[in-house]
Amino acid sequence: MNKNEFCKRPPMGWNSYDYYDTTVTEADIRANAAFMAEHLKDAGWEYVVVDIEWYAHDPGTQRDLYQYIPFWPMEMDEYSRVIPDPVRFPSSVNGAGFRPLADYVHSLGLKFGIHVMRGIPRQAAAAHAKIKGTDVTANQIADPSSICKWNPDMYGVRDMEAGQLYYDSVIELYAEWGVDFIKCDDICVIESTDVPEIHRYASKHEIRMIAKAIEKQGRPIVFSLSPGPAHLEQAWIYQKYANMWRITGDFWDDWKALKNMFCRCELWQDHVKEGCYPDCDMLPLGKLGRGFGDERDSNFNKEEERTMYTLWCIFGSPLMAGGDMLHYEEDVLEMLNNKEVLELLDPDCRGRQVIRDEEKAIWIAENRWKKTAYAALFNLSDEEKEISGTLDELHVGMESLKCRELWTGESNEISGKKISAVIPAHGCKLYQILD
Amino acid sequence: MNKNEFCKRPPMGWNSYDYYDTTVTEADIRANAAFMAEHLKDAGWEYVVVDIEWYAHDPGTQRDLYQYIPFWPMEMDEYSRVIPDPVRFPSSVNGAGFRPLADYVHSLGLKFGIHVMRGIPRQAAAAHAKIKGTDVTANQIADPSSICKWNPDMYGVRDMEAGQLYYDSVIELYAEWGVDFIKCDDICVIESTDVPEIHRYASKHEIRMIAKAIEKQGRPIVFSLSPGPAHLEQAWIYQKYANMWRITGDFWDDWKALKNMFCRCELWQDHVKEGCYPDCDMLPLGKLGRGFGDERDSNFNKEEERTMYTLWCIFGSPLMAGGDMLHYEEDVLEMLNNKEVLELLDPDCRGRQVIRDEEKAIWIAENRWKKTAYAALFNLSDEEKEISGTLDELHVGMESLKCRELWTGESNEISGKKISAVIPAHGCKLYQILD
Amino acid sequence: MNKNEFCKRPPMGWNSYDYYDTTVTEADIRANAAFMAEHLKDAGWEYVVVDIEWYAHDPGTQRDLYQYIPFWPMEMDEYSRVIPDPVRFPSSVNGAGFRPLADYVHSLGLKFGIHVMRGIPRQAAAAHAKIKGTDVTANQIADPSSICKWNPDMYGVRDMEAGQLYYDSVIELYAEWGVDFIKCDDICVIESTDVPEIHRYASKHEIRMIAKAIEKQGRPIVFSLSPGPAHLEQAWIYQKYANMWRITGDFWDDWKALKNMFCRCELWQDHVKEGCYPDCDMLPLGKLGRGFGDERDSNFNKEEERTMYTLWCIFGSPLMAGGDMLHYEEDVLEMLNNKEVLELLDPDCRGRQVIRDEEKAIWIAENRWKKTAYAALFNLSDEEKEISGTLDELHVGMESLKCRELWTGESNEISGKKISAVIPAHGCKLYQILD
Amino acid sequence: MNKNEFCKRPPMGWNSYDYYDTTVTEADIRANAAFMAEHLKDAGWEYVVVDIEWYAHDPGTQRDLYQYIPFWPMEMDEYSRVIPDPVRFPSSVNGAGFRPLADYVHSLGLKFGIHVMRGIPRQAAAAHAKIKGTDVTANQIADPSSICKWNPDMYGVRDMEAGQLYYDSVIELYAEWGVDFIKCDDICVIESTDVPEIHRYASKHEIRMIAKAIEKQGRPIVFSLSPGPAHLEQAWIYQKYANMWRITGDFWDDWKALKNMFCRCELWQDHVKEGCYPDCDMLPLGKLGRGFGDERDSNFNKEEERTMYTLWCIFGSPLMAGGDMLHYEEDVLEMLNNKEVLELLDPDCRGRQVIRDEEKAIWIAENRWKKTAYAALFNLSDEEKEISGTLDELHVGMESLKCRELWTGESNEISGKKISAVIPAHGCKLYQILD
Repeated sequence: MNKNEFCKRPPMGWNSYDYYDTTVTEADIRANAAFMAEHLKDAGWEYVVVDIEWYAHDPGTQRDLYQYIPFWPMEMDEYSRVIPDPVRFPSSVNGAGFRPLADYVHSLGLKFGIHVMRGIPRQAAAAHAKIKGTDVTANQIADPSSICKWNPDMYGVRDMEAGQLYYDSVIELYAEWGVDFIKCDDICVIESTDVPEIHRYASKHEIRMIAKAIEKQGRPIVFSLSPGPAHLEQAWIYQKYANMWRITGDFWDDWKALKNMFCRCELWQDHVKEGCYPDCDMLPLGKLGRGFGDERDSNFNKEEERTMYTLWCIFGSPLMAGGDMLHYEEDVLEMLNNKEVLELLDPDCRGRQVIRDEEKAIWIAENRWKKTAYAALFNLSDEEKEISGTLDELHVGMESLKCRELWTGESNEISGKKISAVIPAHGCKLYQILD
Repeated sequence: MNKNEFCKRPPMGWNSYDYYDTTVTEADIRANAAFMAEHLKDAGWEYVVVDIEWYAHDPGTQRDLYQYIPFWPMEMDEYSRVIPDPVRFPSSVNGAGFRPLADYVHSLGLKFGIHVMRGIPRQAAAAHAKIKGTDVTANQIADPSSICKWNPDMYGVRDMEAGQLYYDSVIELYAEWGVDFIKCDDICVIESTDVPEIHRYASKHEIRMIAKAIEKQGRPIVFSLSPGPAHLEQAWIYQKYANMWRITGDFWDDWKALKNMFCRCELWQDHVKEGCYPDCDMLPLGKLGRGFGDERDSNFNKEEERTMYTLWCIFGSPLMAGGDMLHYEEDVLEMLNNKEVLELLDPDCRGRQVIRDEEKAIWIAENRWKKTAYAALFNLSDEEKEISGTLDELHVGMESLKCRELWTGESNEISGKKISAVIPAHGCKLYQILD
Repeated sequence: MNKNEFCKRPPMGWNSYDYYDTTVTEADIRANAAFMAEHLKDAGWEYVVVDIEWYAHDPGTQRDLYQYIPFWPMEMDEYSRVIPDPVRFPSSVNGAGFRPLADYVHSLGLKFGIHVMRGIPRQAAAAHAKIKGTDVTANQIADPSSICKWNPDMYGVRDMEAGQLYYDSVIELYAEWGVDFIKCDDICVIESTDVPEIHRYASKHEIRMIAKAIEKQGRPIVFSLSPGPAHLEQAWIYQKYANMWRITGDFWDDWKALKNMFCRCELWQDHVKEGCYPDCDMLPLGKLGRGFGDERDSNFNKEEERTMYTLWCIFGSPLMAGGDMLHYEEDVLEMLNNKEVLELLDPDCRGRQVIRDEEKAIWIAENRWKKTAYAALFNLSDEEKEISGTLDELHVGMESLKCRELWTGESNEISGKKISAVIPAHGCKLYQILD
Repeated sequence: MNKNEFCKRPPMGWNSYDYYDTTVTEADIRANAAFMAEHLKDAGWEYVVVDIEWYAHDPGTQRDLYQYIPFWPMEMDEYSRVIPDPVRFPSSVNGAGFRPLADYVHSLGLKFGIHVMRGIPRQAAAAHAKIKGTDVTANQIADPSSICKWNPDMYGVRDMEAGQLYYDSVIELYAEWGVDFIKCDDICVIESTDVPEIHRYASKHEIRMIAKAIEKQGRPIVFSLSPGPAHLEQAWIYQKYANMWRITGDFWDDWKALKNMFCRCELWQDHVKEGCYPDCDMLPLGKLGRGFGDERDSNFNKEEERTMYTLWCIFGSPLMAGGDMLHYEEDVLEMLNNKEVLELLDPDCRGRQVIRDEEKAIWIAENRWKKTAYAALFNLSDEEKEISGTLDELHVGMESLKCRELWTGESNEISGKKISAVIPAHGCKLYQILD
């Protein structure tokens, strides 16, 4: 099984984190899945992902002290594998795990994903719990010095045969459940900037071990690495083993962070390939933060929202909607359902940034097979501004006289081979250049 | 003028440094150019490049103390521009500069290149010499704190209008001479590892200024950056302004350095694009080091030589032969003239490393238009060894039954979809996989 | 209580680590204590220190895999405090702890010390064990991300009131046992060089908390910090809270490491003060390594042994004999019992290095009250060599004509104000300069 | 000659930089010297120091572009040694150099100092100028890659015999002039923080060479190193060769910088020794900045001024008054003439910081010979505040009942062994504790 084969376009879906944090329940997932099936599936949205701490007891109850309660019970099977918290995921009892929920998601024509921390539960190591199919116990494969700096649940798994067998058993369980997507955390780069580079790749062998376990299992499970920012020097490792990897820390509804993504996308633009996607992180849309005890509307205005979405698309990032879909307003749904824009994710269409400074950015994408090209003009300044470029400057090889703005549907003539638009602060225009 | 347009394949040529160092003369250049025209031109070799210090008086005469004599006279015109040392380049007198030598090279059907240090001569700054077409003098555009750590000739040029005019005047002169290729030094990365990263890009604005000067001039001059190792984070800058950039420090005939190139090429393999070439540096072939006072035969044995050349080709590096061509033996010439191997440089053929460990490496290149693929098997260990991989493992999408080894011409069957060969220590096999 | 008051001279004693590692038993400690009382006490040796893992079950039984067995039972009382392993320390049963052993050591006229890791047992955090005198449990004060890189026993204690109460309770227990010396580990500097500086002081608040607990308890317990190398920028912290701190990583019987100590002592020579001692680590003497499964004689020859000891003395380091005292040969005992040399530890006598290069070092110490001075000449080269210096060069303010070598007892004249000696490779001479 | 012998107390004087920058003239120096002799000499103030660029032509005339004009003529003798600019220092003509000005300063009973950049003029290297007493020329001893990042005048001198002879000739000239104090710049630490540590000590050999030249010359010239912050790891080098070294970057009239000095002084407090003084930099008093084109009164209020001065004194820093003395108001003169406070500079009186946090600092100094002690209480907060400490907490070993505040002259009783005062924001109290 070649992991690039089953992931020819950047994955599109929804993730529970931005709204629910650690508190998400089965009901929340079902409601969002149903919503996606009804309102977004047709445009290609398919993954429904349960994010962090679905195995934890009482998440969110000590939020004044911790996001993740340390040394607290986690639901675990007899083989040191975490299973869903039965209080929040009632259908998971009696050994069913996520199977019933995955079945429901599949019944809607969608795919089911979960978040997981790399490693083996600290409580399994302390309890000398069993590893399926082996004589060894968890304390023998857990590395006591390989920890996550921001989450207390796990120890890293040692690079040894029994460690591989543990990951094999974990992926086997996920496959039995019907999992289609794994977002593995604490494995891409250690977030804290005060960790030296050499140390940030401590989890490199675990990327390999999990990839191998997926390959052995034979189920086409998308393998997503978190958190970021990933390191360019390791691009070839990510490409070899994973389908997507985060190129930024947690992305939230902050203009400064969004502006910075133009720089990050520039760094990674050569690395977007079939089955291999640098990941710009979730799209913080609509209502956010309830699970964090800080429910709010996204701080992005409509211009910024569109700028974000346009950049993600023309760059070729996976698209993971954040926020609670049930609260999405009509304009957000329209944006996500714009199929012309989603054509940018076509494997034969690769974007590149041709101009970037403090005030503006221009991206170009060409689809040689379909003989079409796109130009996205971004106003990064804080005032309305004319943004323009000639086809020559943009290195577009077409002799074109017409273009169409894909968000408004307006047609324009290209006079003097120059594309130009007056754009509001933080806004953008996305043109398809017609042959 | 789009700099990518006139450089659709990695440049191929010869450079004087590995054999002559700072002491190269007009006669040396003419002899090598004539040799190239007779023995190598037909296979695509075309650039003849005069490397460092062609403007310096007495180079090599104080070699026990310095490679580059500090505070020593350099030949310079009235506008602070270096011109050839008339002792070593007699045809350059009376303002002719490199024109006569370039004419000769062109008359052979070849192209002419020169090395240059970024910046303006320190002696021009001290003398308050003129800048062509301006009222300012050299002291006003020279930055006294922007120096090269290893060469005392120049000061960096400030990022100001008069600085751009200086570079414009320099490129104008080169264009008048008929220069086709500029290897600009001390501009890609400062070699010393004890310089912090932030400081290594001090010369970023000079990359831009020189690129702009070339574009203004309108002559298709290949712009090559040195020394390395270039930084991945700056890839987009190199791509935007230059045609090639060094991904390694000076490369010499040392197996450890060669083995290390498999790692560097892996890092840069996604960045080989039309008009944009990560550069593996010169090929140290035949006789080396005379100008350094250390004339010797290359330390590479025949296996290593071929391994180097095969890697450079399948990766898509520019090919700059080093060593004195007049001393090349028959087998070296045969290697350089193998046109089947040089097909790897075709713009539609991009290589990637699919396997690498301490013992071996395997590269694959596919040319979708010509429906052919290549597999290079390298034995990186110190003993004879069987190296093999299945087409699946190598991610070759062809259902092929035959292949041909391009160095020996032998045909092989591919049984069980597996390519395999017993290869001497440090050696390689290069297979074309036939449809 | 002022911690500097009860520690006016560098502490002198013995530590079990170099010979016994984790496997030391009560019988070993008693035998060494008895030996010290009989053979070394008279010269000032007094501390008997039980080093690492005295609370661990089965130490040394999985040595092929681990020095410290992870996730293995440790003996602990009901308040999350480690207590001695009853198998190796039989007198500790029934709640006696180290009291009986300390009583025995005290009965010999000696003092009793123990090693301890900073923090609270991981097993206490997992078990939500109690903290004496509080309502909180171990999981609430343990910091899940504050771990020791090389030892899996503990979590760091959070900087909170209940954390202070835990340390108070720990020191209270030690005081009840009669502990006179605590070597606290994983608290001075994290040994791994790949940890950034900012992170190395994660344990700073624990230095303060333990110092405060000792001060509260009111028992004069020497507080020693490990491992090293300590950082000069933190000197004022060490001085404020502790009595000694390691200025090197683990020091073993290796000439290169010994030579390097001349550099480290130079860095720290201004910081030797009453109650505050930069610590050169144990003296690896006699038989070493049994507990490590690698029993051997020290690799130091007699010259090197004396060089080490002379440096430690003239610098003013604490003196902690390593190796099994029962195996000490006569010459080692003579060395340790040379009272004239031990005069160098007098609080009014501070040494300084006046000359150091690759070949030699010369240290000077003056005792203004006793109107005497010392000069130590070290031959750091690998050949016999004459080492010399004039009193002027050495900045000795005395007009002296005589000196006495303290290891041989020989008297010398100082002719021409010059001290000079032919010294074997790696050897030294220690002169007292007489008024 | 032992450099510690002629510098038993921290040097006290005045420096032209803070007010005059590069523009200072002979008249300015004479006027300030006369003022010092009349108003400050009696309290111990003695050095009059001419700061940077006294050899430069036209300093300050291109201030909109440069503080130091690059590639501009500097006055130089035939042996590559800078001499005073005759325009600004008219008495220096005809080879007299600074002799007449030094004579004048000496005639007032004061001492004369100059600033100098390490190295040899770039213009001397370019001109192949002579080196006195040798056959070599400046280009042979100048290191083309050893430059000052912020000043374009010099190249570093190579570590070679002819380099030593150059420095010998320079110091010989200064001795002929009657120089008593050299503030050598660009030699202590390279100011830019983006230079890696290993590189910051490039000038280490030049510290040694200049110290050796002074020692050879035999004149007691105080050797002061700049800029800072010096590095603790190099403390032993500074101590070995110099009399004072800057522990901070340029210090100006900024509260944040002053507050930070409490931290820096803590780091260096163990390194204040006879002849060896960590240097807190000039005291920016009265009028500042005229030479910078920014004449202003110091931003420090009276409380801050006194806090600064008290810290400098109790720490034992050299005292170099900045600002133009002619503008000093009465209260500043009173402060500088308080002889009781200046007793803190007594060699037997060493200060140490016993308490420091964000809100306050307390320093203690004891003079064992005179049986007296001092306590300085600093309010570092932005509000009036009571600051207090018991004699025990302050580790003062005296049983005292009385103290006197040295700025106000008020006597206080010490009740309950506690010293306490209500102090304005940023202010201090300095108590002498009486026996």
